[in-house]
Amino acid sequence: MNSTLEVYFLPELTTAENLAGKTVVVIDVLRATTTIAHALAAGARQVFVCETVDEARELAATLPGSLLGGERGGVRIEGFDLGNSPTEYAPEVVRGKTVIFTTTNGTRAMRVAGQARQLLLGAFVNFSAVCDALRREPAISGAIVLLCAGTDRQVTREDVLFAGAVTDELCRAGGFRINDQAAIAADAWRVAARDLRGAAPLAETLRETRGGQNLIDLGLERDIAIAADIDRLTHVPRVDTANWSVL
Amino acid sequence: MNSTLEVYFLPELTTAENLAGKTVVVIDVLRATTTIAHALAAGARQVFVCETVDEARELAATLPGSLLGGERGGVRIEGFDLGNSPTEYAPEVVRGKTVIFTTTNGTRAMRVAGQARQLLLGAFVNFSAVCDALRREPAISGAIVLLCAGTDRQVTREDVLFAGAVTDELCRAGGFRINDQAAIAADAWRVAARDLRGAAPLAETLRETRGGQNLIDLGLERDIAIAADIDRLTHVPRVDTANWSVL
Repeated sequence: MNSTLEVYFLPELTTAENLAGKTVVVIDVLRATTTIAHALAAGARQVFVCETVDEARELAATLPGSLLGGERGGVRIEGFDLGNSPTEYAPEVVRGKTVIFTTTNGTRAMRVAGQARQLLLGAFVNFSAVCDALRREPAISGAIVLLCAGTDRQVTREDVLFAGAVTDELCRAGGFRINDQAAIAADAWRVAARDLRGAAPLAETLRETRGGQNLIDLGLERDIAIAADIDRLTHVPRVDTANWSVL
Repeated sequence: MNSTLEVYFLPELTTAENLAGKTVVVIDVLRATTTIAHALAAGARQVFVCETVDEARELAATLPGSLLGGERGGVRIEGFDLGNSPTEYAPEVVRGKTVIFTTTNGTRAMRVAGQARQLLLGAFVNFSAVCDALRREPAISGAIVLLCAGTDRQVTREDVLFAGAVTDELCRAGGFRINDQAAIAADAWRVAARDLRGAAPLAETLRETRGGQNLIDLGLERDIAIAADIDRLTHVPRVDTANWSVL
């Protein structure tokens, strides 16, 4: 089979041209893709992802009743209704609502994938659902890309571990040509998974990562446990790149 | 201890400012750092690393008796005496000679480290010697960086595996704070090392990498076995960034 599975550790390591026509999964485990998945699972009508704070505010002004959410430097933006913690997107808050969302890293990764054939959002909370969605893809697009968001243009281990987990799972059945970053990610995940079998929960591994350390420093440690709750959700958010809405 | 050990998968993932004052090991396993180590072990008087072909030719014109070596696209440059295969740098060819060397990726990585306190070249052929040199460093510089050259601005697994091997070795004694890329590299190496204990030689792993595949396509497969010959050499090349000579 000629299907390819590529991993990129950062958006800067690929180009819009390379992603065009492919099935792309954007990964920002701590926390954008985890939080968006939770918001939709909690009944949000849709989520719009915006690159800048101004863009988010302008869109909100045209959509009465919408909620503004997101972060800069990990903390809620002034005047916004919600930050970037999954816990804030509870059913009683977001059910039936449109959420307008902006985060630094996750959003930038999505924008690089603007010409993708299909753009999905992945995190440990919807791991198996993402794998199931991708298993149907090779026959359609022939090319899958797992795109890690990173933090401030630095590689973050939590995103690479998730990319590795998906690579490991999809490659069990064989048939993929993978790039070097995919091989590295899968090996990194295999070591982490061995630790998991040794009963250390994934949250402990995520605490050690750059993203985990940032959250601990911000007093947001509970978000790590939520992000490490593998397969808590069954929905795979899909981004419509025509208007950057996520359903 | 407050020593840091950072890995960068590509020169583009760090900056000259971040490397300033640190002990930096540039890694281009296939093949620049392997070949330079072999050239010096074979008795070359010194190696000058040049960024461009023109720069190399100009320097050669001022150094009668010197040898021009290097590659573009993996093959010997027109009019050059030598390519980028370790086998070409045999004692009978290079002993006592000055070599003027230019390769695409290794040289670019070295130039980013122009303000390093100390700049070393590492590859599997001098693995233990590099580790021994670095064990003395924390007390001096307090900061070690393992800088992978990659290929054409893409991450290559062979460089990451070597960075991981060094990280794994140095961290056994504890005392280093490491970045996420170092943790990923060390885990990737641990999986490869497990395969090695299962009797698959390192050359088999390197054959699968992007760099390995390039060499196979160019008919240069024998260079992979040479690059995989762990601890064949005991010398650690050191770059003088004042004039880009390597001793």
